[in-house]
Amino acid sequence: MPTEPDPDAAAAVQELLGGRFGEMSTLMNYTYQSFNFRGRNKVKPYYDLIANIAAEEFGHIELVAAVINGMLTGATDGDDIHQSPLKSYKGIGNPHHFINTGLGALAGNSLGQGWNGEYVFNSGDLVLDLLHNFFLENGARMAKIRVYEMTDHPIARQMLGYLFVRGGVHALAYAKALEELTGVDVKKMLPIPAVPDSAFKEAQPFTDQGLHGKLYRFSPEDFKDLGAIWHGEHPIDGTPLEVEDGPPEGGQQWDPPEEKAVSSPGLNPEELQEMAQRLLRNV
Amino acid sequence: MPTEPDPDAAAAVQELLGGRFGEMSTLMNYTYQSFNFRGRNKVKPYYDLIANIAAEEFGHIELVAAVINGMLTGATDGDDIHQSPLKSYKGIGNPHHFINTGLGALAGNSLGQGWNGEYVFNSGDLVLDLLHNFFLENGARMAKIRVYEMTDHPIARQMLGYLFVRGGVHALAYAKALEELTGVDVKKMLPIPAVPDSAFKEAQPFTDQGLHGKLYRFSPEDFKDLGAIWHGEHPIDGTPLEVEDGPPEGGQQWDPPEEKAVSSPGLNPEELQEMAQRLLRNV
Amino acid sequence: MPTEPDPDAAAAVQELLGGRFGEMSTLMNYTYQSFNFRGRNKVKPYYDLIANIAAEEFGHIELVAAVINGMLTGATDGDDIHQSPLKSYKGIGNPHHFINTGLGALAGNSLGQGWNGEYVFNSGDLVLDLLHNFFLENGARMAKIRVYEMTDHPIARQMLGYLFVRGGVHALAYAKALEELTGVDVKKMLPIPAVPDSAFKEAQPFTDQGLHGKLYRFSPEDFKDLGAIWHGEHPIDGTPLEVEDGPPEGGQQWDPPEEKAVSSPGLNPEELQEMAQRLLRNV
Amino acid sequence: MPTEPDPDAAAAVQELLGGRFGEMSTLMNYTYQSFNFRGRNKVKPYYDLIANIAAEEFGHIELVAAVINGMLTGATDGDDIHQSPLKSYKGIGNPHHFINTGLGALAGNSLGQGWNGEYVFNSGDLVLDLLHNFFLENGARMAKIRVYEMTDHPIARQMLGYLFVRGGVHALAYAKALEELTGVDVKKMLPIPAVPDSAFKEAQPFTDQGLHGKLYRFSPEDFKDLGAIWHGEHPIDGTPLEVEDGPPEGGQQWDPPEEKAVSSPGLNPEELQEMAQRLLRNV
Amino acid sequence: MPTEPDPDAAAAVQELLGGRFGEMSTLMNYTYQSFNFRGRNKVKPYYDLIANIAAEEFGHIELVAAVINGMLTGATDGDDIHQSPLKSYKGIGNPHHFINTGLGALAGNSLGQGWNGEYVFNSGDLVLDLLHNFFLENGARMAKIRVYEMTDHPIARQMLGYLFVRGGVHALAYAKALEELTGVDVKKMLPIPAVPDSAFKEAQPFTDQGLHGKLYRFSPEDFKDLGAIWHGEHPIDGTPLEVEDGPPEGGQQWDPPEEKAVSSPGLNPEELQEMAQRLLRNV
Amino acid sequence: MPTEPDPDAAAAVQELLGGRFGEMSTLMNYTYQSFNFRGRNKVKPYYDLIANIAAEEFGHIELVAAVINGMLTGATDGDDIHQSPLKSYKGIGNPHHFINTGLGALAGNSLGQGWNGEYVFNSGDLVLDLLHNFFLENGARMAKIRVYEMTDHPIARQMLGYLFVRGGVHALAYAKALEELTGVDVKKMLPIPAVPDSAFKEAQPFTDQGLHGKLYRFSPEDFKDLGAIWHGEHPIDGTPLEVEDGPPEGGQQWDPPEEKAVSSPGLNPEELQEMAQRLLRNV
Repeated sequence: MPTEPDPDAAAAVQELLGGRFGEMSTLMNYTYQSFNFRGRNKVKPYYDLIANIAAEEFGHIELVAAVINGMLTGATDGDDIHQSPLKSYKGIGNPHHFINTGLGALAGNSLGQGWNGEYVFNSGDLVLDLLHNFFLENGARMAKIRVYEMTDHPIARQMLGYLFVRGGVHALAYAKALEELTGVDVKKMLPIPAVPDSAFKEAQPFTDQGLHGKLYRFSPEDFKDLGAIWHGEHPIDGTPLEVEDGPPEGGQQWDPPEEKAVSSPGLNPEELQEMAQRLLRNV
Repeated sequence: MPTEPDPDAAAAVQELLGGRFGEMSTLMNYTYQSFNFRGRNKVKPYYDLIANIAAEEFGHIELVAAVINGMLTGATDGDDIHQSPLKSYKGIGNPHHFINTGLGALAGNSLGQGWNGEYVFNSGDLVLDLLHNFFLENGARMAKIRVYEMTDHPIARQMLGYLFVRGGVHALAYAKALEELTGVDVKKMLPIPAVPDSAFKEAQPFTDQGLHGKLYRFSPEDFKDLGAIWHGEHPIDGTPLEVEDGPPEGGQQWDPPEEKAVSSPGLNPEELQEMAQRLLRNV
Repeated sequence: MPTEPDPDAAAAVQELLGGRFGEMSTLMNYTYQSFNFRGRNKVKPYYDLIANIAAEEFGHIELVAAVINGMLTGATDGDDIHQSPLKSYKGIGNPHHFINTGLGALAGNSLGQGWNGEYVFNSGDLVLDLLHNFFLENGARMAKIRVYEMTDHPIARQMLGYLFVRGGVHALAYAKALEELTGVDVKKMLPIPAVPDSAFKEAQPFTDQGLHGKLYRFSPEDFKDLGAIWHGEHPIDGTPLEVEDGPPEGGQQWDPPEEKAVSSPGLNPEELQEMAQRLLRNV
Repeated sequence: MPTEPDPDAAAAVQELLGGRFGEMSTLMNYTYQSFNFRGRNKVKPYYDLIANIAAEEFGHIELVAAVINGMLTGATDGDDIHQSPLKSYKGIGNPHHFINTGLGALAGNSLGQGWNGEYVFNSGDLVLDLLHNFFLENGARMAKIRVYEMTDHPIARQMLGYLFVRGGVHALAYAKALEELTGVDVKKMLPIPAVPDSAFKEAQPFTDQGLHGKLYRFSPEDFKDLGAIWHGEHPIDGTPLEVEDGPPEGGQQWDPPEEKAVSSPGLNPEELQEMAQRLLRNV
Repeated sequence: MPTEPDPDAAAAVQELLGGRFGEMSTLMNYTYQSFNFRGRNKVKPYYDLIANIAAEEFGHIELVAAVINGMLTGATDGDDIHQSPLKSYKGIGNPHHFINTGLGALAGNSLGQGWNGEYVFNSGDLVLDLLHNFFLENGARMAKIRVYEMTDHPIARQMLGYLFVRGGVHALAYAKALEELTGVDVKKMLPIPAVPDSAFKEAQPFTDQGLHGKLYRFSPEDFKDLGAIWHGEHPIDGTPLEVEDGPPEGGQQWDPPEEKAVSSPGLNPEELQEMAQRLLRNV
Repeated sequence: MPTEPDPDAAAAVQELLGGRFGEMSTLMNYTYQSFNFRGRNKVKPYYDLIANIAAEEFGHIELVAAVINGMLTGATDGDDIHQSPLKSYKGIGNPHHFINTGLGALAGNSLGQGWNGEYVFNSGDLVLDLLHNFFLENGARMAKIRVYEMTDHPIARQMLGYLFVRGGVHALAYAKALEELTGVDVKKMLPIPAVPDSAFKEAQPFTDQGLHGKLYRFSPEDFKDLGAIWHGEHPIDGTPLEVEDGPPEGGQQWDPPEEKAVSSPGLNPEELQEMAQRLLRNV
């Protein structure tokens, strides 16, 4: 994933991780809604839907965090502490990326404010909570578009292409759930704002693979009733809506490179590695 | 899980979910440390340890949230809105449990303040982060003891018994990791405070099952190197320290009962269920 | 408005003033959306609608604040400072009502946290902002219902009856605006939660007066185009939807009684009055 | 109002809107003080003064918000989303202006922190509250001077010229009220800091019109007793202090231009307009 | 200092420690104003005054913290952890006193919110900063009166008696400084609110000792010029205003008793003491 | 101390004053731990140690504040308000340095967030609190290293050299205290991160003076038992560990120069000085 560092863009991407409409918010809204879902057995498809999307969101915070790591990698001028290797980044981006992390992602937004548990909405009333989730997904889409307009950093753009498509699935899923409950054809409002995913060339590869029509079933044992809501055709291009067992195929795990200047993961990684090797004889 | 409602105790238990030393904090500290771990392949046992404990912590937020739901269940006087079914709970516990949730858990602490992403510590330096984690686990243990002293609600106590034991495993694991890296026998400090788990009768059943010696490997594919750190004997009773493949056996899933007074999950759950049944014909 | 003081209920009512779904939030969301409305002349009915509802919300913060004042009036034991006239209120309600105000309303929520400008949502995209407003009104309705269930204090209940009806008008207005823009019959979702206003006996007098069908035009000069959106019939009872020039007839201004114990408005109001009289000779 | 965009200056101007000493603070302090004013009929001139100034402050938040909109207008490079039209603004100004608004004003300060209800001071004691207000107006003046020194953007400067004069009226009014109550000639301290309004050339036009001597009576019915406090001569130039019925003559309403790049008010404003026209046939 | 525990009152007293108008605020306002005082040598008496009062305020946070410790001492039911020794305090006072401290003072207010550095006002302009300080002292006095009315706990009352007198000195000192700079006889406003210190019987002993006329010179070397401001007579009773070298005679140091239930300072203090004795052989 | 102004670096240095790991945090953690220390007479060396280090930390906040003042001095373009003397600093550093202070230090961090009382950890359990303090000192060291890497401003570097050494003393002192209590040789972990103080050339002069082996006894009367913990040899270079009576010799007091552009300390300092001279005739 090696690319040019861009701390200013990385600071902006934080909004998509720890902002009110970032992935921490979608993750935790759906997680707490599933934890607190009363009478879930009676309306199991709705429970399954929310709990299952929560599971996918965990992968999204991992993805955005990896991208931020990638955008910060290399944001030092050499490794010699005395040569002020962070000096040219003074006043650039989020100072906490440099001071409080080893060029890593923060659980906060583009202003550096921490993600807050008060961002979770969970009234207990299913219609209201679904309406919230539908709004949240659309608000999140807006934030992503704005960050898209702010940077063309290649790994940010690739991530955004993927998230436009997956976020679109979640918005549609909540719309269909609302429709089942209330009879209102909410999905007709989509996309909000009125620029289709197909307008983003980075979304194309994922649409080509049909990802906009798939809901992954993260726990095949538990979430059996997703298909009760997720079926029919995609309102834009008629792609059949299908539930696929198992999580999406993960990309290859990325190991963010060491950054000696900020002693991440420690000033003498060779020494650490030697220790690790010694340890591994115990396995 | 039906028990007497106790909103005051439920408000206190929130500290263990969304307080600075609650399970949201352990979960998110280890999660972000694993996301941002640079050079992880060189020191894989440490990465595996942190990422694997993060995985277990997710189960802990679920557990604490379920207990809070249980402690709030029934905290209404009938279902008739006009009869002010929440009136006797005015001034009791956390008002947001009643106003902002349908008697569910909040992502906040015992004062009602939201959990904050600034609680995450992740300097990038492995020794410093492990020292933090060791401190965090001990701070978390203190908070649990204080809440234990504040309530003898049976489901809170059962949860605490379990968490004392599992938290003890995590504290010991970080101590051993620190010891490998620095040569300092940190585990000799344990337990902090100096009251052993065995002093809590509710921890006994779990210790009897040997849970204090087991590290669960949540992803057998990924976290192969845990044994490099987690081996030897438990410093207190000599129980062999073992890695067990797979997550702990979950308890039976609990479906928190409906609460009509707060329209959770909706004022007419029968109607909702009918819809759900109709939906399920689609599966 | 003299009634029994009830500081615990007053603390709960604060949620409806300064909580995320309180009147400060509806006021400021619509206010900032109107301030920042770009291209307003091209889509004037929408601008008029948002700006006009903002104007009504100002009256709502005044109303809720008056009710809180009323619920706190008399919450002292005599006026003698040495006799600890607030002692029986220690641990009751929100301490800031006593310490930081003279038994008056705070710009904060039921936990005592200040209302925050971050509660304002204003993406600029009209569809998204209207969707937010529709959600906000419904979330606000939920909060009102929960507070209704928490207290039967007569002035709180009267206020709630009125706000159910007016909030219902706003929810419907945003639903109709959304419908015009997107073709989606959003109003079919109402009411959320699924308990109609008619279920609240305190709402009855206001429905009887037809207030659920009226949109007040606060600035007859400026907001001429409200009727483009607000017309037709009420979806529940068929009441014709009408725009009425001018604000609603205000209730009689209420002068909250002095509270000597908290020197509000000063320890010697007689002396103050004398000064005031002297001043008035200048008018 | 078309001018060069200057997002860095717009971010600074936010301090005057949502900072502790911004117009949201003056507005809400006086608003809550009037809402909570106990025994107001006995000391009506004071009540009238505070409530009346609150009314004027509403116009001030509108003004500052309009200026921020003006300073952000045009802060995009074209409208093509794929061309990253916000890229050159990455790291410039407040990212939330771009991500969370459609180039509009935020209810927050120059650091992006939301305005907070805890900024309201309202002890209930009239002397103390007036002393606070006197201090607040002077603190607000200092903030304005500092922002004046930070930007010579023409619309910011024009706004500042106006606000210096009107803020000066409010400071003087509170000084006179304090003097009536306590006999202390507080107005002798003015101006704070010791640079007169006349030093700001942008204030001159407004002083020339005598605005520094006028108190507008926003509600001629309600606030009849303003003259009991606001009379005599201006301490600096002897201008007679007069109450004028009615609000100040507003400037021409400004319609901030559309910004397609941020879909404000929507990606296809022409389409929106067509809808609006259709709607208007209903009026 | 052994007295009855009163956690509800202790929670209220926190406002005087960590609230916006608490001793942390007076301490830190004057401390930062002295740190940032530019050109201090030219106007040394003012610098001396602010820096010297800052020094006294440090003693005040110590005093309030000691009182809170005293009011919490004994707030447990025995020492046996299994007997839930904190159970009867569930829902009483501030839960963080029990969970996050060992029955000690928090750096926060009566709502449990942390003291915040944003409470510091320091414009740099001497007149404005002094005006702020004068206001702050009067706001602090109001908070103290309200807490006085809320509790008659003997150690709280004794503390309040002392702080009324010393706070009065500080308010007067800032008034005199303002008067010297501006010619305005600000001290004529005092006391605010208009109830004299002599009305509080607990203040009497300190007034009898003449403490209301004394300014302690905390650093006789540094703060030589205090007398330039602090001289003349007390406006209420004519007591001569005098600077006294050295800090006020401290009360006897109090050692808050151990609380085994919350392991403060540790579960086995005898063991700790043995260690301490062993250590002392090294001295 | 006149140097080139560098507001961007000054904003970063704020992290070391008001950040979670800044000097405000070390000061207030140890201060509150000493205030709340129960049973202190039984374990007096530990009490003495914590209280004594608290005293030294006060000097550190003064030092960091002075450095920030120095780095901001001169950050204006002339003194003429009309010439926008702050214009070239728009978008540079922390806007509150310019708007809310007269180029002075804030009680906040590098993001401009206020220091918060919730940063204080004080469980009451001595081992846990000491473990926290040991962690805190190492976290603080990491923050200092990162700021060191971010700026080579001469006064920042000099300050950092000094603070590395004194922070090292505190970390070692807490390590030794923990070792006495638990038998664990914690100091063997030091330094964290694994770059020794000797690697920082600016620390050299202070190490040469032996400051890394000295604990200053701030109150010779009170803190007699420090030697029980602080004795033996420095683990790195064998320097004898000694307690020295009295505080460190202070540097010469620095008077930060006036900044007319921001009216600090007032627009006409000559006039102020004249007043001051007049005042001094009273001394």
